[in-house]
Amino acid sequence: MQGQAQQQAYDRGITIFSPDGRLYQVEYAREAVKRGTASIGIRTENGVVLAVDKRIPSPLLEDSSVEKIHKADDHIGIASAGHVADARQLIDFARRQAQVNHLRYGEPVGVETLTKNVTDHIQQYTQVGGARPFGVALIVGGIENGEPRLFETDPSGTPYEWKALAVGADRGELQNYLEENYDPEADLDGGISLALDALASVNDGSLLPSEVGLATVDAESESFEQFGLDQIETHLEENDLLGEEDADEADDE
Amino acid sequence: MQGQAQQQAYDRGITIFSPDGRLYQVEYAREAVKRGTASIGIRTENGVVLAVDKRIPSPLLEDSSVEKIHKADDHIGIASAGHVADARQLIDFARRQAQVNHLRYGEPVGVETLTKNVTDHIQQYTQVGGARPFGVALIVGGIENGEPRLFETDPSGTPYEWKALAVGADRGELQNYLEENYDPEADLDGGISLALDALASVNDGSLLPSEVGLATVDAESESFEQFGLDQIETHLEENDLLGEEDADEADDE
Amino acid sequence: MQGQAQQQAYDRGITIFSPDGRLYQVEYAREAVKRGTASIGIRTENGVVLAVDKRIPSPLLEDSSVEKIHKADDHIGIASAGHVADARQLIDFARRQAQVNHLRYGEPVGVETLTKNVTDHIQQYTQVGGARPFGVALIVGGIENGEPRLFETDPSGTPYEWKALAVGADRGELQNYLEENYDPEADLDGGISLALDALASVNDGSLLPSEVGLATVDAESESFEQFGLDQIETHLEENDLLGEEDADEADDE
Amino acid sequence: MQGQAQQQAYDRGITIFSPDGRLYQVEYAREAVKRGTASIGIRTENGVVLAVDKRIPSPLLEDSSVEKIHKADDHIGIASAGHVADARQLIDFARRQAQVNHLRYGEPVGVETLTKNVTDHIQQYTQVGGARPFGVALIVGGIENGEPRLFETDPSGTPYEWKALAVGADRGELQNYLEENYDPEADLDGGISLALDALASVNDGSLLPSEVGLATVDAESESFEQFGLDQIETHLEENDLLGEEDADEADDE
Amino acid sequence: MQGQAQQQAYDRGITIFSPDGRLYQVEYAREAVKRGTASIGIRTENGVVLAVDKRIPSPLLEDSSVEKIHKADDHIGIASAGHVADARQLIDFARRQAQVNHLRYGEPVGVETLTKNVTDHIQQYTQVGGARPFGVALIVGGIENGEPRLFETDPSGTPYEWKALAVGADRGELQNYLEENYDPEADLDGGISLALDALASVNDGSLLPSEVGLATVDAESESFEQFGLDQIETHLEENDLLGEEDADEADDE
Amino acid sequence: MQGQAQQQAYDRGITIFSPDGRLYQVEYAREAVKRGTASIGIRTENGVVLAVDKRIPSPLLEDSSVEKIHKADDHIGIASAGHVADARQLIDFARRQAQVNHLRYGEPVGVETLTKNVTDHIQQYTQVGGARPFGVALIVGGIENGEPRLFETDPSGTPYEWKALAVGADRGELQNYLEENYDPEADLDGGISLALDALASVNDGSLLPSEVGLATVDAESESFEQFGLDQIETHLEENDLLGEEDADEADDE
Amino acid sequence: MQGQAQQQAYDRGITIFSPDGRLYQVEYAREAVKRGTASIGIRTENGVVLAVDKRIPSPLLEDSSVEKIHKADDHIGIASAGHVADARQLIDFARRQAQVNHLRYGEPVGVETLTKNVTDHIQQYTQVGGARPFGVALIVGGIENGEPRLFETDPSGTPYEWKALAVGADRGELQNYLEENYDPEADLDGGISLALDALASVNDGSLLPSEVGLATVDAESESFEQFGLDQIETHLEENDLLGEEDADEADDE
Repeated sequence: MQGQAQQQAYDRGITIFSPDGRLYQVEYAREAVKRGTASIGIRTENGVVLAVDKRIPSPLLEDSSVEKIHKADDHIGIASAGHVADARQLIDFARRQAQVNHLRYGEPVGVETLTKNVTDHIQQYTQVGGARPFGVALIVGGIENGEPRLFETDPSGTPYEWKALAVGADRGELQNYLEENYDPEADLDGGISLALDALASVNDGSLLPSEVGLATVDAESESFEQFGLDQIETHLEENDLLGEEDADEADDE
Repeated sequence: MQGQAQQQAYDRGITIFSPDGRLYQVEYAREAVKRGTASIGIRTENGVVLAVDKRIPSPLLEDSSVEKIHKADDHIGIASAGHVADARQLIDFARRQAQVNHLRYGEPVGVETLTKNVTDHIQQYTQVGGARPFGVALIVGGIENGEPRLFETDPSGTPYEWKALAVGADRGELQNYLEENYDPEADLDGGISLALDALASVNDGSLLPSEVGLATVDAESESFEQFGLDQIETHLEENDLLGEEDADEADDE
Repeated sequence: MQGQAQQQAYDRGITIFSPDGRLYQVEYAREAVKRGTASIGIRTENGVVLAVDKRIPSPLLEDSSVEKIHKADDHIGIASAGHVADARQLIDFARRQAQVNHLRYGEPVGVETLTKNVTDHIQQYTQVGGARPFGVALIVGGIENGEPRLFETDPSGTPYEWKALAVGADRGELQNYLEENYDPEADLDGGISLALDALASVNDGSLLPSEVGLATVDAESESFEQFGLDQIETHLEENDLLGEEDADEADDE
Repeated sequence: MQGQAQQQAYDRGITIFSPDGRLYQVEYAREAVKRGTASIGIRTENGVVLAVDKRIPSPLLEDSSVEKIHKADDHIGIASAGHVADARQLIDFARRQAQVNHLRYGEPVGVETLTKNVTDHIQQYTQVGGARPFGVALIVGGIENGEPRLFETDPSGTPYEWKALAVGADRGELQNYLEENYDPEADLDGGISLALDALASVNDGSLLPSEVGLATVDAESESFEQFGLDQIETHLEENDLLGEEDADEADDE
Repeated sequence: MQGQAQQQAYDRGITIFSPDGRLYQVEYAREAVKRGTASIGIRTENGVVLAVDKRIPSPLLEDSSVEKIHKADDHIGIASAGHVADARQLIDFARRQAQVNHLRYGEPVGVETLTKNVTDHIQQYTQVGGARPFGVALIVGGIENGEPRLFETDPSGTPYEWKALAVGADRGELQNYLEENYDPEADLDGGISLALDALASVNDGSLLPSEVGLATVDAESESFEQFGLDQIETHLEENDLLGEEDADEADDE
Repeated sequence: MQGQAQQQAYDRGITIFSPDGRLYQVEYAREAVKRGTASIGIRTENGVVLAVDKRIPSPLLEDSSVEKIHKADDHIGIASAGHVADARQLIDFARRQAQVNHLRYGEPVGVETLTKNVTDHIQQYTQVGGARPFGVALIVGGIENGEPRLFETDPSGTPYEWKALAVGADRGELQNYLEENYDPEADLDGGISLALDALASVNDGSLLPSEVGLATVDAESESFEQFGLDQIETHLEENDLLGEEDADEADDE
Repeated sequence: MQGQAQQQAYDRGITIFSPDGRLYQVEYAREAVKRGTASIGIRTENGVVLAVDKRIPSPLLEDSSVEKIHKADDHIGIASAGHVADARQLIDFARRQAQVNHLRYGEPVGVETLTKNVTDHIQQYTQVGGARPFGVALIVGGIENGEPRLFETDPSGTPYEWKALAVGADRGELQNYLEENYDPEADLDGGISLALDALASVNDGSLLPSEVGLATVDAESESFEQFGLDQIETHLEENDLLGEEDADEADDE
């Protein structure tokens, strides 16, 4: 009955302060982020790397449909962790904001501006009644004035800028890995290696191409590129991280 | 009194996060899906197969009125599992979206686009107060650029793309069956056989034509076709799955 | 106090899912249907029969004012069971829909279309907050393209097509009776006999004309006809089902 | 504390179904009707009689201000029982509907039509949130196509047609009295006698003119007439029902 | 803790029926009326008398600002008892209604019409959610067609017409006093004497001018007159009811 | 846990009547007034005095920013006690009303009219749901037709006129002091002395200029004047009430 | 379970008064302010200093993205403490108000006017239902008529003017430090020294440049200047407060 009572208490209510000044609904939304598989963003000298861990619950599921990396504009990519349907809403919101910026000012939106548009939108869902917060964290990476920029949005609606970060499951362990191994002078390939190493470190040391998502935004071309399975496999091989499919799944295609 | 108290707790409230980051109303809506009979979708080389299990509670009920497969557009079919009245709302929504696409762009809507229109619509009912989530899962199958595509929408509003999937009652058992027997090189007839075999596997090995729904979307003709009782009976016979009506019902018509 | 606590729990709330995926308010609305006296619909070769059981709580009540059969359009009749005031709302809704169809398309509305208009309307009251579901089930019978059609709407907003069905009190017993005795080749007179036999079977074998409502929609004329007391009495006599009024009521008029 | 807890439970909530399919707020509204003094309606060969019991809590209260019989239109009168302020709202609603009918169709509204306008209005207050049901029952009596008609509206929004009925306090006893003594061939005078007899039967056999309200709608003239104290006294005398005022109140005027 | 629990239960909710058909919020609003000091209205042969008891909690409070008698129109005065701020709202409402009547019909509003405008307004606050009832009773006195009329509005929104009445604190005792001593043939001076006698009877037999409010509406002049302190003192002297100020307050001005 | 439970009960709800006819939210708002430091208003022969007690929690806080006396119009000042942010809303409301009066009628608003505008506004927040009452009391002082007037608004929305009054902390003690020492023939200087004496009486007999606010509205010039620190210091010296700053704060400026 | 129960109580409700006149939601919002790191504002002879403590939870987080000091207009800066996402909303509100002032009046907004615009906005969120209060305190510093002004906004919506203040974590300790060491005749450099000394006093006596934010508004130039890392480092060195990075973080860049 205890679990029962506990559970019942959260089927109602709106987002208000607790006596110690916390917003429980926002904190629970952060738990929703932790329930999602990890996503990583790394800023390098010449671009931004986005890498994500994907759980494919069935070999019949198309890996590509577990979308955790999205193109927001030519020069901006977004990786997400947490409640997938909420992520789609925020991605759509970001894309519309980017288009509006093109139309209004005739130029691409800044990465910081876009991030703050999104966090302001998120904050509204934590203060005004009648809706719950978004249960998702985003990593927004792109090029602004030729410089790579990397941001995080959290469920409270706070924007943070990072050199490298992880969100979602195993965030603590992954963030420690990144802090110990981050090299600010690395290039995109170095960033990809670090991201894959980190993901592998919480996956028994190896990864399957189908369970990884990978994308970069190159500082020179200012363009977002999402990697295919072959490219991912190549990178995993180069980094000696390529895992083996289970025998009974290997001949699936 | 315990069942009582349990039950009372869910007669109120809106969809908010629990302390561990879950959305109970969405999870309960998933239970509503499991309460519905199974629906199966299978993607083959030359088209998509939709097959559903139907419970006909009375021989006086018209089998055809237990609608679980619907035509959304010429080239797209949708099978559902769960709360029937909710399914009708989503099907209507999908049809209107398909028509809008025809009017706006002068071309048929993409299967992926249509699915995501529907999941965005579903997501709204999980975040904004004043309504409950949809208690239904859809299997959206169709042809896009000549290629068969097969999608799922779940009550959280997440889209997934599948090679083959089952939703509703016995999902676990059926999905295992599909994983073990799916042949990516099969054609439509092979897909139909697999779908009927799977349904029969959770129905004592045989099926009555009236308790099965069957439809295909052919990749070449790009057209949705719903099968009549005779066609279903033929397929069941060919696959050695034809069950016998109970004696006292046999002479009903 | 237990009954008390039980009762208090249902004076509030909106329609949401229970942990096992059920919608209690919809299920309670189904109980409201069962609290109403029985209504029966029977599809025959040349038309549809609607027959209802009426409880006349006082000999001073005008039998005719206990309205359970309504004309929705020239070619469509509706019988109801459950909360009477709710039934009136849905009947009015159906009539307006039928008129709108006449105005828009210059032709009578189809029986299936009209039924689905009504069930979509019902579904809204089970998903959007601020109102309770309709506590009523309707039997919609009519002629479409020269063919008799017979539908049910239930409080969840699901449409079903039937050969013959009963709703309201004693549904289980009546439905069994219909299943055992339904003859798909019967004509309207046969349908009337079956309907009256069924009603009598749960009323000690006989019926009073004032406690029965009877109507048909003829396939040839495509017209709805509600029977008067004399016609009902004749049919009861022909079927040897005519009951006797209590002595002290007999000389009331 | 028990009465306390009981009481507290009904200071909140909206009208929804209980597990057994009942609408408690509607049933409690019916209790509000029973808390009001009795009102009686009797249909006769040549008109309708409305008679009401009035409690005058103080000799200083003007009897005439305890209004329980109202003119809705030239040819329709309404008697009420229950929550007085609610009754006034419904009477006003009925009067406006009658006027609208005059304006729109250039003819007096039908008694049945008017009654159903009122019951549809009442039903809305039992289904849509944000308001409580009306705690009042009305007896609507009038002439339609030269024929006397007599209807009841109850708090659920159901219309009933009667030959004779009682609502409010002592309904059961009064209804029995009417059933035993109703003569369908009586004229208006006979109807008045029956109504006064019935009221006296639950008032120790006699009545004070100031505690009775009396009105008729004559079938020939199609006009509503409310009786003055003298007329009531005359009728009471003729029926041998005239009570005596208490000594200390007798010289009040 | 018991008082605590009791109290908590009434900090929420809207006005709905209790199982025995009562509206608790309306009954509690009646308690709010009883918490106010008494107000009396008396109808005489040639006009209406309004008299009120005022508690002046501090000698520094201006007696005149404890307003319990108000002019609603030239020919209508209103006395109130209960929640003062609520009374002001209803008085303002009544004044606007009186003005609207002047503008629309070019003649003064009837006393009964105005009273019913006010009670209809009050009723709305007892049925529609989102607000509490008015915690005030009004005595509306005025001249209509040359005749004195005297009405009461209570928190349920019911209008009553009286020969003489008391509302507020000590209502029971005062109403008994009025019933025993009311003389329907008295003139305005007689009415004033009765009103002051009644108020004194629940104030140790004497009254201070500052703690009494007094006004009349004269039938001949059809005009409302509010009495000043001197006039009140004269009337108290004439009736031998003049009390003595406390010594320490006597030299206050 | 008891304090806990107590506290929880007031985090929800709207303003409704308790069984004994009280409005708890209004009474709690009165407690909010008592939590504020005292404010005093005194009406004299030739003007009105407003004096307030200010707590300066830190020597670094600008005394002038603890605003408790406000100019509402040239001829009207307002002192407040209670929730400071609520006071600002009402002051703004009053100022707008005063301006509207200037624009509409070309003349300054009356003190009584302005007060009643404010109290009507306050009352709305005690009856209509969706907001809490104002937790503040105002003292409105000004000149109307050459005469000094002094009003109070309380959280229920009731206006009172006073010769002299105190609101906020120590109201009881201060009001007693005023009653014992008020001289209706005093001039503005006498009023200032009384106000400062009263404030000192609850502050160990002396006051710091920074912890006092002082203003007058002169009857002849009809103009509001707020006193500076020097003027306050002079008045405190003249009345022998000047306190000494604490040693460690003395050299702060 | 106790912590559980405690916690559950604050997942619902709106801002209303407690029995002792407090607004718990506002007090909990004040706790949210205390959960944020400290911010300090100091008014000097020739300008205003804003200094903030920043916690950088990971060396990979860009210090600059932990924004606690913002430019509101050329001549006004704002430092915040508390819920970061809420702060952003209020800063945006302030900026829009400043722009509106430019557009409407062709001149820069006054510091006091802008502060009160913000506090009025904050107050609305504490009185009207449907939203929670802002969990943030702002320090608004700027130049008005050539004079430095320094204000605070708190979660209740009250504006205060200060010579020097601290908000957020360690407010008590910091405010004491400021009171003991504030020199009203200091210039901007003196103000910077005091601010850094104060922050160091609650950080073991030294500070890292990356964990400090610093800005001034100069009275002569009337312009806001935010300091870079180098400038902060210089000021820390000059004041002998420069801390050492942890060894393992030192070579991060």
